[in-house]
Amino acid sequence: MAELSSPPTSQYFNLTYPLPYVAHVEINRPEKLNAFIEPPASIDSYRTNPIHIANTTQNTPPASPAPSSPTSPPSNPASPSLETCPKPIIAVLHGHCYGLGIDLSLCADLRICTPSAKFAVKEVDLGLAADVGTLSRLGKVAGNASWVKDVCISAREFDAQEALRFGFVSRDYRSSCLRRPRITMRKRKGMAKEKETAISTALQWASTVASKSPVAVQGTKELLNWSRDHSVADGLRYTAVWNGAMLQTEDVGRAMRAGGVGKGKEKKKPRFEKL
Amino acid sequence: MAELSSPPTSQYFNLTYPLPYVAHVEINRPEKLNAFIEPPASIDSYRTNPIHIANTTQNTPPASPAPSSPTSPPSNPASPSLETCPKPIIAVLHGHCYGLGIDLSLCADLRICTPSAKFAVKEVDLGLAADVGTLSRLGKVAGNASWVKDVCISAREFDAQEALRFGFVSRDYRSSCLRRPRITMRKRKGMAKEKETAISTALQWASTVASKSPVAVQGTKELLNWSRDHSVADGLRYTAVWNGAMLQTEDVGRAMRAGGVGKGKEKKKPRFEKL
Amino acid sequence: MAELSSPPTSQYFNLTYPLPYVAHVEINRPEKLNAFIEPPASIDSYRTNPIHIANTTQNTPPASPAPSSPTSPPSNPASPSLETCPKPIIAVLHGHCYGLGIDLSLCADLRICTPSAKFAVKEVDLGLAADVGTLSRLGKVAGNASWVKDVCISAREFDAQEALRFGFVSRDYRSSCLRRPRITMRKRKGMAKEKETAISTALQWASTVASKSPVAVQGTKELLNWSRDHSVADGLRYTAVWNGAMLQTEDVGRAMRAGGVGKGKEKKKPRFEKL
Amino acid sequence: MAELSSPPTSQYFNLTYPLPYVAHVEINRPEKLNAFIEPPASIDSYRTNPIHIANTTQNTPPASPAPSSPTSPPSNPASPSLETCPKPIIAVLHGHCYGLGIDLSLCADLRICTPSAKFAVKEVDLGLAADVGTLSRLGKVAGNASWVKDVCISAREFDAQEALRFGFVSRDYRSSCLRRPRITMRKRKGMAKEKETAISTALQWASTVASKSPVAVQGTKELLNWSRDHSVADGLRYTAVWNGAMLQTEDVGRAMRAGGVGKGKEKKKPRFEKL
Amino acid sequence: MAELSSPPTSQYFNLTYPLPYVAHVEINRPEKLNAFIEPPASIDSYRTNPIHIANTTQNTPPASPAPSSPTSPPSNPASPSLETCPKPIIAVLHGHCYGLGIDLSLCADLRICTPSAKFAVKEVDLGLAADVGTLSRLGKVAGNASWVKDVCISAREFDAQEALRFGFVSRDYRSSCLRRPRITMRKRKGMAKEKETAISTALQWASTVASKSPVAVQGTKELLNWSRDHSVADGLRYTAVWNGAMLQTEDVGRAMRAGGVGKGKEKKKPRFEKL
Amino acid sequence: MAELSSPPTSQYFNLTYPLPYVAHVEINRPEKLNAFIEPPASIDSYRTNPIHIANTTQNTPPASPAPSSPTSPPSNPASPSLETCPKPIIAVLHGHCYGLGIDLSLCADLRICTPSAKFAVKEVDLGLAADVGTLSRLGKVAGNASWVKDVCISAREFDAQEALRFGFVSRDYRSSCLRRPRITMRKRKGMAKEKETAISTALQWASTVASKSPVAVQGTKELLNWSRDHSVADGLRYTAVWNGAMLQTEDVGRAMRAGGVGKGKEKKKPRFEKL
Repeated sequence: MAELSSPPTSQYFNLTYPLPYVAHVEINRPEKLNAFIEPPASIDSYRTNPIHIANTTQNTPPASPAPSSPTSPPSNPASPSLETCPKPIIAVLHGHCYGLGIDLSLCADLRICTPSAKFAVKEVDLGLAADVGTLSRLGKVAGNASWVKDVCISAREFDAQEALRFGFVSRDYRSSCLRRPRITMRKRKGMAKEKETAISTALQWASTVASKSPVAVQGTKELLNWSRDHSVADGLRYTAVWNGAMLQTEDVGRAMRAGGVGKGKEKKKPRFEKL
Repeated sequence: MAELSSPPTSQYFNLTYPLPYVAHVEINRPEKLNAFIEPPASIDSYRTNPIHIANTTQNTPPASPAPSSPTSPPSNPASPSLETCPKPIIAVLHGHCYGLGIDLSLCADLRICTPSAKFAVKEVDLGLAADVGTLSRLGKVAGNASWVKDVCISAREFDAQEALRFGFVSRDYRSSCLRRPRITMRKRKGMAKEKETAISTALQWASTVASKSPVAVQGTKELLNWSRDHSVADGLRYTAVWNGAMLQTEDVGRAMRAGGVGKGKEKKKPRFEKL
Repeated sequence: MAELSSPPTSQYFNLTYPLPYVAHVEINRPEKLNAFIEPPASIDSYRTNPIHIANTTQNTPPASPAPSSPTSPPSNPASPSLETCPKPIIAVLHGHCYGLGIDLSLCADLRICTPSAKFAVKEVDLGLAADVGTLSRLGKVAGNASWVKDVCISAREFDAQEALRFGFVSRDYRSSCLRRPRITMRKRKGMAKEKETAISTALQWASTVASKSPVAVQGTKELLNWSRDHSVADGLRYTAVWNGAMLQTEDVGRAMRAGGVGKGKEKKKPRFEKL
Repeated sequence: MAELSSPPTSQYFNLTYPLPYVAHVEINRPEKLNAFIEPPASIDSYRTNPIHIANTTQNTPPASPAPSSPTSPPSNPASPSLETCPKPIIAVLHGHCYGLGIDLSLCADLRICTPSAKFAVKEVDLGLAADVGTLSRLGKVAGNASWVKDVCISAREFDAQEALRFGFVSRDYRSSCLRRPRITMRKRKGMAKEKETAISTALQWASTVASKSPVAVQGTKELLNWSRDHSVADGLRYTAVWNGAMLQTEDVGRAMRAGGVGKGKEKKKPRFEKL
Repeated sequence: MAELSSPPTSQYFNLTYPLPYVAHVEINRPEKLNAFIEPPASIDSYRTNPIHIANTTQNTPPASPAPSSPTSPPSNPASPSLETCPKPIIAVLHGHCYGLGIDLSLCADLRICTPSAKFAVKEVDLGLAADVGTLSRLGKVAGNASWVKDVCISAREFDAQEALRFGFVSRDYRSSCLRRPRITMRKRKGMAKEKETAISTALQWASTVASKSPVAVQGTKELLNWSRDHSVADGLRYTAVWNGAMLQTEDVGRAMRAGGVGKGKEKKKPRFEKL
Repeated sequence: MAELSSPPTSQYFNLTYPLPYVAHVEINRPEKLNAFIEPPASIDSYRTNPIHIANTTQNTPPASPAPSSPTSPPSNPASPSLETCPKPIIAVLHGHCYGLGIDLSLCADLRICTPSAKFAVKEVDLGLAADVGTLSRLGKVAGNASWVKDVCISAREFDAQEALRFGFVSRDYRSSCLRRPRITMRKRKGMAKEKETAISTALQWASTVASKSPVAVQGTKELLNWSRDHSVADGLRYTAVWNGAMLQTEDVGRAMRAGGVGKGKEKKKPRFEKL
C-alpha cells in the first residue's frame, strides 16, 4: 500500500493494512480512556480504506470516565466519531471486555467474539450509570429486553455463548462460540489461536465488502443507522431520497453494465471506484 | 366458496381459496417487478377473506427497480398496500429469495420458510441501497443488529437456519429448519415436498385465525404495527382509544356471551361475523 | 427485618422478605382483575427494599377488563405503576400465564419462567385487542416480529422453550427451559419443585443486585426504559445529564474510594446507602 | 346546583359555580407551592362540570420548588393533572404572574389576561432552570421562538400587550390589551374592574362551550393535545380511531337528529347528556 | 395552452389556466363532501402546471363525514392527496369557510382570505371531533395554541382580522384584512370585488413561483413539510441528502450558468425546464 | 478584560468586548462561505464570555454552498457549532440579509433587526433547496406556516415589519420596526444609526443576562432547544433530570442565600461564578 502516508500508529494503537482497502486498528491499552477516544477521532481520515477492524480487549474494570459537567451540553466523545464513520467497522472482541470495551463495540457495525471471551457491563459497580453509550445502544442491538436489563443491572459477567444467543454478537463464528470452551492447560495458547481465527473471520468478511461499490456499502450503513431510530414510514422516505442522490454516481452504471440488474447481459464482476 | 366472484388471477399470480376465508396468492414470476406490485394492489379487495398467504420464490438477482425521481415525493409502491392491508398476511418463502422477495416478505406479518430456502439482501451489488423497504424494516423485524448489518452490507447468502436464529423468519417450522437439509439425489423432489409442508403449516395457522373475531384480529395487527413505530406510552394511548372504538362492534358481545370473559357461563365457541 | 412495619399483605397477595432488601410479592388470585391492580399501586411504598419479585400464575382466561371509556383519557392502571417503579422487578412465571399475566410481566424488568410454564396472549378471543399493554410492549421486548404477530394474532399457546428462544423470557434458567418437560406421574410435584427453583434463581439475582449502589441500579433501569422509546442520540443526551445529576450522590465517592475506578487502590466491596 | 355535594373549598382556593356546568376555582395563595398542587389534584373529581376557570395571581417570586431527586423518576406534580384533565380549563391571569403562575397557566387550554397584568419567567433568577414545565411548554404555545428565549433567558418582565402579540395569551380581550393601560390614581380600582371583566369574558366562553356535546368538547381537547406532540400523520390516524370510538355515544345521534349534519331537517339546538 | 388535453372540469369544480403553468381550481359546491374529495385526487395529474389555486367557499355547516370504521386503517381521503401533491397550492378563502373548507385549506401551502371572510371549526357541533385533519394541522399552522383551542373547542366564528393575527392565513392581503370590512349597501358587490382581488393576489404570487426552478420549488415544499414533523437534526440530515439528489438535475447547472451562484458571471434570468 | 488572551480576530470577523462577559463578533465578509463557518467554530472557546452578539449583513445572493456528497453523512458545518454553543447568542440583522445570513441567524437564540433591514430566503433561485438549515429551522421559529411557505417558495424579499409580525425576529426593537422606514436623503446615515441602536439594544439585553447565574442561563437555553424537538412529556422528564444535575452547583445556593427563594431573608443580588 505504497500510496499511503505513514499510518498514524501511536502508543495506544497499531494500524496495519492486512488487505487492500482494509485497515486493522489494534487497541493496545484500552484500560486508558484516552486510548479509546483517540483512534476513532482519526479513523475517518484513512480515506482509502473502506473497512476497519477494531480489536479490543481489556483486563480490568474500566477507568472512571471523566463525568460530563451538568451545565455543558452532553458529550460522549468516543462514540459519535465511530458511529458516524461512513465506513463499516467490525469489532473483534476477545479476552475480557468490560465497560468501555462494550461501549466501543456497540458503535461498530458488526461484533464478532472469540469463544472464550468474557463480557460485563460494569458501570453499575461505579455507583454511576454507564456514561458512554451502552445503555442507549444495547437495547437496540440485542433482541431480548429482559436479558439486557439482567446484565446491565447486575453487572454480572456473561460468556460468548450467551452473547451470541441474546444478540450482542453475531455471525459465522457461532459454531465455535456454541461449544463451551474447554479449560485446558494450553488455554493461553488457545486464546491466541482463537483471536487469530476471529480476526481472520473478520478479514474475510471485510474482503468481501471491499469488493462492493463503496457508494452502496456506505449508503446501506447510513440507512440502517437511520432506520434504527425512525419509524418505517420515515425510513422509506429517507431511503427513496437517498437512492435518488446515489443515482448520479458512476457505480450504479457500472453495476448495470456488469449485468447485475438486467437479463441477457454478460455477467461479470463490476469494478467500483474507491472513495 | 360459491359466493365469490371469479378471482382476479392473472399471468403474474394465481389466486385460490384453499379454506373458507383464506386466500392463497401464488406469485408466478417474481423476477418481474410488476408482478410484485400488482397483487398487493388488489389484495385488499378480496373482502370475504381474512387471511392471505403469499408464496414467493425467485431465482435470479432482482431486476433494477425504477429509481424514484429525486423531485417527486418518495414512493415505494409494493410495500404500503401490503403493510396497510388490514388482514394478516403470511409469507411462505422457499427456493431463492433475493432482493425483492425479501422486501415483499418484510411487509407480511408472518414469515415461514422451507428448510432449504436461501436468502440474500442483494441491493448492495447494484451499486444502490435497497429501494423498497428492506433497510427500513429488517432491523425492526430481526433481533440482532449486528447480523442485520452483516447480511445487508455484504449481500452474502444465508440459509433457513440462520434466518430462524436471527429473527428473519419465525414459527413452528423450526424443527425441520434446524436440521441441515441433506443434499440427496432426490433433492428437487424434496424441495417440492418442503414447499407443500410449509404452505400447509401456513394454512393451519390461517385456519385458526379465520375462526377468531375479525375485528380483534385486524385490530391486533394494526396495534402491533403502530407500536413498532411509537413509544410504549403512545402505544398504550392508541390502544385504549382503539378498544373504545371496538366496543361498539357486535363481536365483543358475542365473545362475552360465549363465555370467553365471565365465569359460570357455559363455554362455547363464539361465531363472529366476517368482515 | 424488624425495622419494617407490618407488610401490606392482603387476600390478593402475600408479601414476604426472603432476603435483606428483597421483597417477594406472591399474587394469589390473579384471575381477579383487581388483584393485578392492587399490588403495583403499593409496591413503591416498600421503600427499604430495592428488589421486588412478582410471582404470577393464572389458570383461566383473563377476566374481561373494564373497557376504557372512549371519551376519557386512556388509562391502563396496572402497568404504569409497575413500569415507573424505580426498583428492579423480576417476574417469575409458572403454570398458565394467560392474558393479564403476560400484560403484568411485560412491565417487569426481568422475566424468568419454569420449564413447564405455558403462555398465551388471549385477548383476540375476547373480540377485543389487548387492553393493558401487551400489544404495546411485546414487540419491544422480544426480538422476532414475526413470532410476536404469530402469538398475538392467533392466541395460540406457547411453551417455555419458545418463550426463551424468541425473547419473551431470558436468563440462566435456560438449561432447564430447553429440556422438554417430561410428563410423568409426578408432574404436579415436579411443578412445585420447578417453581421453587425459579424463585430461588430470581432471589439469587436479586441478592446480587441488592449489594450494588441503589443510585446506579435505579438509574440504569430508568435509562434503559428511556432508551427503548428514544433514538440513540436522545439516549446519549439524557444519559449525560443523568450522570451529572448522580455525581452529587455519595455512592460515586464510595465506589471510587473502594477502588472500583482507580488503579493502585486496595480493592474492597463498597457499602452503599440504601434508598 | 343543588345536586353537588359540598365543594372542596379550602384555605388555598375557593370553588364556586357561577353558571350551570361551569366551575370557578380561585387560587388564594399561589405563593405557596402546595396551593398550586392541591387544586389540580381534585379538579378532575368535580364530575358534573365541564369547564373550569382557574384564576391565578401572584405577587412574589415563586417559592423554591422541592428539587426532584436525581434518582427517582422525574415528577412534575402540578402540571399533569391539569393538562390531562379531560375538561377545558381557562386561566384568567391578572396582577403579577411570575414563575409558578405561568407554569400553571401553560397547562390550561385558554389563557386570558387583564390589560395591566405583568408576567415574568423568573426561574433563571434562582440559579435553576424552570422545574415545573414552562420551558417544555412555552415554545409550543407561543409562535415566536426568539421571544420565548428572550423572556426565559433574561427573566425580564413583560406586559399584557406583549403577551398577546407573541402568543402567550389569546382571545377577545385583545381590544383592551392593545390599549396601553393608563396609570391613573384610580389604578387599584381599575385593576379590580379589569379582573371582573376578564372573568366575565371567560365565563361567556365557558357558557358557550357548556352547551356543546361534552363528548366532542373533550375529544377536541384530547386530539389537540395529542397533535401538539405528534406528526400530522400520527394525528390523522389517532383522530380517525377516536372518531370511531365516539360514534357509539348518543351525542352524535342527537346532533344528527337536531339537523346539524343533514339537509332538509328542522334545525334545532341538540341537548347533550352531561358527563 | 394548446398542449393541454381538455381539462377535467366537472359539475363540482371548474378548472382554468389563467397564466402559463398556473391552474385555477374553483370548487363549486363544497357543501358536498364528494366535491372536496374529487379534485385533489386528480390535481396531481395536471402535470404541466406548477401551481394550483384552490378557491373555496361554503355557506352551510359541513355535511356529516362518513365515519371511518374503527376496524379499518384510518383514512382521511381529502387531505393526503392535497398535502403530498408536489406542487405548491394556494387556498383563496372567501365567504363562509366552515368545517371542511378549513380542513381543505389546511392542506394547502398558502392561505389567503378576503377581508370579509368568516371562519368556524364547526365539528364540535356535530358531537364528533373533526374527522379530516383540522385538529391535527391547525396547531402546526397557527402560532398561538390558546387561540387554536379557543376556536376548536367553542366552534365560534372568527373573521379575517383574527385569522391573520393568529396565523391561520398569511400574506400581503393584510392591508385590507386589517381594515374592518365596512358593512355597506353594496356589500354583495364588494364581496365579489374582494374575491377578485384575493385571487389576483394569489395569481401574482403563483406567477412569480412559476418562473423558478420547479425542482427547487417542489424540493422546498417537501423539505418544509418534512421539517414540520421532525426535529431540527432530522431536518438537516434529510435536507443534505435531498440536496445531493437534486444536484444531478439540470436546473442547478442552469442557475449556476445564469450567474446566480458565482461571481464575475453575467447575471441573467435562468430558464428552467418545466416538470 | 486583561485576563483575555489576544482575541482570535481575523480578516473575516472582528471580536471585541464591549461589556464584561459580553463578546461582540462582527462578521466582515459574509458573502464568503468560509467566513460563516470559521467564527462559530471558535466561538465556544471564548470561555469567559457568556454572551455573544453576531452582527450579520450581506449584500449579494449567497455563494453556492459546497454541495454535500450524497455518500457521506450529511454535514451542515455552520449551524451545529452555533446552535450547540451553550451560551446565548443574539443576531443583530441589518442591511440585506439573504440566504446564508438567514441560515446563520436561525441558529442564534434571539434575532433583532433594524427597521430598514431586508430579508430573503434565496435558495430557490439556485435551483437547489436551502442547504444550511433555513428550511429545517424557520418553521420552528416563526408562528405562521403559511408565511413560512410563502417566503421560502417564492424567494421574495420581506422587510423588518413583516419579519416581526410573522415571528422571524422579536423583541423590543418593535416600536421602530413598526414604523415604516422613511426613505430620506440621509438614508445611508440613518442606516448606520439604526445599526448602532440595534446593537445597543442587544447589548442591553446581554448585560442583563450576564448578571444572571450562568448555570441557569445555559440550562435554560439547552432545555428550550430540547423542548423544541420533543414532546411535552419528554421535555418534563429531561427538565427534571437537568434540575437534579444543577442542584450540585454553587449557584443555587447563592441564589437561595440571596433571598431569591425563601421568605424573611434579606433580598440582595446574588453574585454567580462565571463559567
